[in-house]
Amino acid sequence: MENLDRLALHSITTKPWNLETAVGKYREAGVRGISIWREAYEELGAEKAGKLARSAGLTVVSLVRGGFFVHPERGERRARVEANIELIHEAAALGAPHIVLVCGAHRSVRIDEARRQVAEGLEQILAHAEKEGVRLAVEPLHPMYAGDRSVINTLSEALDLCDSLSSSSLGVTLDVYHVWWDSSLLGQIARAGAASRLFAFHVCDWKTPLEDMLEDRGLMGEGCIDIPGIRAAVDGAGFSGMIEVEIFSRRFWALDQDVWLSKIVDAYRRHV
Amino acid sequence: MENLDRLALHSITTKPWNLETAVGKYREAGVRGISIWREAYEELGAEKAGKLARSAGLTVVSLVRGGFFVHPERGERRARVEANIELIHEAAALGAPHIVLVCGAHRSVRIDEARRQVAEGLEQILAHAEKEGVRLAVEPLHPMYAGDRSVINTLSEALDLCDSLSSSSLGVTLDVYHVWWDSSLLGQIARAGAASRLFAFHVCDWKTPLEDMLEDRGLMGEGCIDIPGIRAAVDGAGFSGMIEVEIFSRRFWALDQDVWLSKIVDAYRRHV
Repeated sequence: MENLDRLALHSITTKPWNLETAVGKYREAGVRGISIWREAYEELGAEKAGKLARSAGLTVVSLVRGGFFVHPERGERRARVEANIELIHEAAALGAPHIVLVCGAHRSVRIDEARRQVAEGLEQILAHAEKEGVRLAVEPLHPMYAGDRSVINTLSEALDLCDSLSSSSLGVTLDVYHVWWDSSLLGQIARAGAASRLFAFHVCDWKTPLEDMLEDRGLMGEGCIDIPGIRAAVDGAGFSGMIEVEIFSRRFWALDQDVWLSKIVDAYRRHV
Repeated sequence: MENLDRLALHSITTKPWNLETAVGKYREAGVRGISIWREAYEELGAEKAGKLARSAGLTVVSLVRGGFFVHPERGERRARVEANIELIHEAAALGAPHIVLVCGAHRSVRIDEARRQVAEGLEQILAHAEKEGVRLAVEPLHPMYAGDRSVINTLSEALDLCDSLSSSSLGVTLDVYHVWWDSSLLGQIARAGAASRLFAFHVCDWKTPLEDMLEDRGLMGEGCIDIPGIRAAVDGAGFSGMIEVEIFSRRFWALDQDVWLSKIVDAYRRHV
C-alpha cells in the first residue's frame, strides 16, 4: 500500500468542484498537492488561488496549461506568445514552480512546420520564464493528438526539443497516458532524469475501447498501462516530486465527487 | 495529375459492394489493383476470388489480414498461429504475394509481454510462409491501438522485429494513417527500402477531430497528412508497387458507392 505523501490531483480531475471546494476536500482526503488549471483560478485570481491551496497545506505542483504555439497566421502566433508570457506571470503569482505546456498543432499547418513553430514559440518565452523563476514543462502528447493538440508526441522528441534550446528552465511532463505504448520509453525516462529535465509525472490509465479520445481516461488499475513499471523507471531516474492524478472523464465527472475522490485515493494506494 | 497505373483499392474501402461488384466497378473506373479482405472472399473461396480479380485485369496486391498473435492463454495463441498458417495457404490460392499482419494486443497482456508474443507468433508461421512463397507484411499500427489491436506501433519497431527474425519473406506495410506523426518516419522509410522490406503502401487521410477511432478515416486531401511528402520518401526508397487506398468510414460507406469511388479516383489524382 502506497502512502499518500506524494499524491497530488489536478483540479480538472474533480471538475464539478470549484477550487475552494476541491482544496478542502483534497485536504480532508489526505491529498498533499494540487495542480491548478487556469479555468480553476480565474474567479479568485492566481495569487489568491495559490494562497488558498497553501493555507490548506497543499503544495501547488503546477499551473496547467500553456503552449499552443502553432497557427498558420503570424499575428495569431505572436498573440499566443504574449498569452504564454502572461501565464508565466500568473504562475509566479500562483506560486507554481512550473507550467505544463501542450505545444499545439493545427490542421492547416504541416507537421514539420508545426514543430518549427513550437521551437520558435518556446524560444520567445524562455527568457521570461527564466526571469520569473518559472520552469516550462513540455508534455509530449499521444500521437492521436498530433493533428489538433500537439505535434510533440514522444518523450524523445520533447527531450530533443529541450536540448535544442539548452536552458535548465526547460524540461518535460511525463503522463503515462501519452507515452505508455512507446518501446523506447524506459531509456528516455533515464535520459530525462540524467539531464535533470523530469519536472512532472502524471498518472491515469488507458481503457479499451476508448469511448472518447479526450474525456474517457481510465482510473489507475482499470486499463492496460504498466503504471508500477513506469513509476519504477521514474523513481530510478531520480524523480522525487509529486505524483499527479490527471483524469478527464465524463463518466467520473458524473459521479458524486466525494465518491470519485475516494476511488482515486484507493486506486492510487493500490496501483501506482 | 497522377495517372492511375499504380492505384489499388482495398475491398473494405467499398464495403457495401460484394467482391464481384467491386471488381467490375474498379475496372470500369480505371483502378489497377485490389487488396482483398478475408470477409470479401469468404463466399467465393480464395482461389475463385483471385481468378475473378485477375480476369478483370486487376492485380491482387495483398490479402488482408492476419496476425493477432497476442492472448493471455497459450492454447488460444496456438489456435491463432494455426489460423495464420491456414491464411498463408489461402494467400497462395488467392494469388496474393503477401499478407498484411495486424500483430495483436490484449488488454490483459502487458505491452512488453505482448511484443514477445508477437515475435513468437511470427517465428512460428515464418517457415510456412517461406515454403508457400507468401510474404508477411507487418503493419505498424497507430499507438492509439496499442491496447487492443497491435503493440507494433512505429515503423522503426516493425523493422527491428523483421531484423530480429532475419527472413527475406518478412517486411512491412506502411499506412500513412498510422505513421504520419512520427518524426523519425522519413529515415525509417529509407531504412525499410534499403533492407528490401517495404512491401506495401497504404493511403488515406487523418481528419480532425476524429468522430471514431476506427471508422472515420479521411479521404486523401481532407486531412492533415503530408501524403505527397511521404509518397516521395517511399518512391525514393525504391518502392514501385501499387498505392493502395484503404479507408474505413461509416460516412463514406453511407454514400452511393459509385459516387464514393469517383471521389476516391479524383482524390488519388490530386493528392497522392
